[in-house]
Amino acid sequence: MLLRAVKEAPAQAVSKSHALLTRAGYVQQSSAGMFRMLPFAERVLAKLEAIVDEELRRAPLRAEKLRLPLVTRSELWEKSGRLGSYGEELLRFKDRRGTEFCLGPTFEEEITDLVASYGVQSSRDLPIKVYQTTMKFRDELRPRFGLLRGREFLMMDMYSFHETEACALETYADVCDAYARIFRRLGVAYDRVNADGGAIGGSITHEFQVPAEMGEDEVVYCTSGDFVANVEVAASSEGPCTEPSCSCGGNGELARRPGIEIGHTFLLGTKYAEAFAAESVDSKQRKSPLVMGCYGIGISRLMAVLIEAEGGSDEDGIIWPRAVAPFDCVVLTAPGNAKAREAYAQEARGLCDQLPESLEVVLDDRWKDSLGHKLAEAKLVGYPDIIIVGKRALDESTPQVELIDRATGEVRLLSVSEVAAHLAASRRTSSPL
Amino acid sequence: MLLRAVKEAPAQAVSKSHALLTRAGYVQQSSAGMFRMLPFAERVLAKLEAIVDEELRRAPLRAEKLRLPLVTRSELWEKSGRLGSYGEELLRFKDRRGTEFCLGPTFEEEITDLVASYGVQSSRDLPIKVYQTTMKFRDELRPRFGLLRGREFLMMDMYSFHETEACALETYADVCDAYARIFRRLGVAYDRVNADGGAIGGSITHEFQVPAEMGEDEVVYCTSGDFVANVEVAASSEGPCTEPSCSCGGNGELARRPGIEIGHTFLLGTKYAEAFAAESVDSKQRKSPLVMGCYGIGISRLMAVLIEAEGGSDEDGIIWPRAVAPFDCVVLTAPGNAKAREAYAQEARGLCDQLPESLEVVLDDRWKDSLGHKLAEAKLVGYPDIIIVGKRALDESTPQVELIDRATGEVRLLSVSEVAAHLAASRRTSSPL
Repeated sequence: MLLRAVKEAPAQAVSKSHALLTRAGYVQQSSAGMFRMLPFAERVLAKLEAIVDEELRRAPLRAEKLRLPLVTRSELWEKSGRLGSYGEELLRFKDRRGTEFCLGPTFEEEITDLVASYGVQSSRDLPIKVYQTTMKFRDELRPRFGLLRGREFLMMDMYSFHETEACALETYADVCDAYARIFRRLGVAYDRVNADGGAIGGSITHEFQVPAEMGEDEVVYCTSGDFVANVEVAASSEGPCTEPSCSCGGNGELARRPGIEIGHTFLLGTKYAEAFAAESVDSKQRKSPLVMGCYGIGISRLMAVLIEAEGGSDEDGIIWPRAVAPFDCVVLTAPGNAKAREAYAQEARGLCDQLPESLEVVLDDRWKDSLGHKLAEAKLVGYPDIIIVGKRALDESTPQVELIDRATGEVRLLSVSEVAAHLAASRRTSSPL
Repeated sequence: MLLRAVKEAPAQAVSKSHALLTRAGYVQQSSAGMFRMLPFAERVLAKLEAIVDEELRRAPLRAEKLRLPLVTRSELWEKSGRLGSYGEELLRFKDRRGTEFCLGPTFEEEITDLVASYGVQSSRDLPIKVYQTTMKFRDELRPRFGLLRGREFLMMDMYSFHETEACALETYADVCDAYARIFRRLGVAYDRVNADGGAIGGSITHEFQVPAEMGEDEVVYCTSGDFVANVEVAASSEGPCTEPSCSCGGNGELARRPGIEIGHTFLLGTKYAEAFAAESVDSKQRKSPLVMGCYGIGISRLMAVLIEAEGGSDEDGIIWPRAVAPFDCVVLTAPGNAKAREAYAQEARGLCDQLPESLEVVLDDRWKDSLGHKLAEAKLVGYPDIIIVGKRALDESTPQVELIDRATGEVRLLSVSEVAAHLAASRRTSSPL
């Protein structure tokens, strides 16, 4: 039996995603900005993480996954100069022996210290491209909007080290390509916008933003061309588009729209490498600090953003991209008298057995609940396909079940073998590129 | 290029596993009891986690995975009465708003609070069986032996809630069966011993211990029968075996041996359920506190224990069980003049292309290093199969490569297609039951 309860939205939920994820039993807030990820959320997160893994490991990027400690020595943050500058969002504490640590919100210090510990890097060991997907902690003063701005969050952070800026830029482009593939697999539209570096610092940096009403960020874009930028770095944000790089040729108008950041890329340069003496040596034995890039995708935030984005929900509940839905489909049985119920349940189990084994199926044969109630719950949860086994399934000449497509609302009457074929096909089209 | 460096063992490494994992580039200690899990370690950990997932999700157990916050309100620990009793190993701190939190070493409080939040549980929602595999933190006074006793560690912790003790015992037995399957897939021998409850408390409790010289725990066992128990709970630990339950029939002798705990099971009873008012209601509307069990496997510790256990290493390095080795095999090229080197590298790439796609292969075609050096490194790292491509691979009539079985040391000369068949077969035998 699933640990899942459909409850009222929390009083403080002012974001659609927080309300829906709570009502549908995906998450429960344990304290301000911290969440219990219940089994359905864990399934979505695991699928998001797996897609990110696949795309970051793919050639030419071929990044390697590792895992840095969450509790990190403050000493390292002193070395980079960020212990003071990062501010109160960096949660600091002492262990029982009095050594000061902090809970890592980002890991430039840990990773650069690691790379530096190997000694000077020769060409053949470079570039280094590593990433992790771990819980991070940022002590936000005002955590809000559920997973959109939490204090504890699951994040993919990647770091790369290079001999030259040219090489770093090549990897930077490869990461942007990987991001594009990731977001395409999720079917989510996004803007890649120029941004400023914030606390991490960095010369070249982009934010990946999903247009959404809920967005705390704002982008300026050209209504006729391809120009788009963070409102904080754009020269102007209204009137005629005068961006020389824009495809509008000077004929566009600027406008603004809200967006939610789901990823970022930074070309960091040598700041951390210099602080930690992480160096490369060339064929003439000349040493120079490594050029570094860092990149991130907020995984738990992304789960919420998929709901905030266009098409991510409707008045009935969540609409997941098939690639990350917690299950592929749910099979509901209709109510009836004891004999009918047993017949429906038997048909439903038979149908589940005939579906391809790779499909993840939930069987909801609770008979105390009305079909309306079960259907409403299935739509709220957002199963991509909902199958109803009722009277028609018992028809001796042409037994049929009802198949509802959650996203389009389309309802079809199909035989069991047709359902199996349909589900297998729709799952294939949502698979890796 | 892999981020991996073969370095000297750390000065403070007094355990074989810590020395080998460090020298072979799997882990690096960042501060006392905290470790950077480098890409090879992350691969082993991911495979261990996947095996645990498979076995815990299998019927009849069918546990569900979730993810609880690492930072947990001290208030919950006050409610259970453990805030004081857990002692200084519980790392506590305040956030910027002055609320006290702790870094979770174990999650009975979080999970019971979650279950209680759903209100009274009816029969149809029980039992609840949930688990997570997350980083935990315990502020050990003397962290030592590398991953065997760290402060930050990856652990699977499972919790179950039941209407009756009989039902709880059924799940308890299912968990023990799942553990047996997990450890069998890893090929690791273990004792299931009666133990006392420690800080968690519990009436029925077992420890799963792997016999190893390094062990900090000690078990008493009968040399002729099946009796085995933790030395702290055994009535006596030497002389004739007088255990009525032992298969020796009173003819055995007691002896002691060291072991390392890799897992535990606790029947907790109603302690936490009472503290958090997590209740069930029966058909007559009578409420009673839920009966709870908790279970754990130390995943990062297990990685080290596989090395400490019999057969887990030899004088050359690590010997992984095939099921969790970071890669299935490594292909090494022999040295030679420029022309020979290029020919070997080409053969090696051709061989990699002919291996089944599901095999995880590392190609080591570095030509500046001697074959002896590369072979020593391959053995240290513990690739289950080592393939050497040298002069014989270029033989026009019967081209052959050398295949070395890391565990047995057996060396064979095989054609490329024979190698592919052999690797596919040896991998199959290490697959899920």
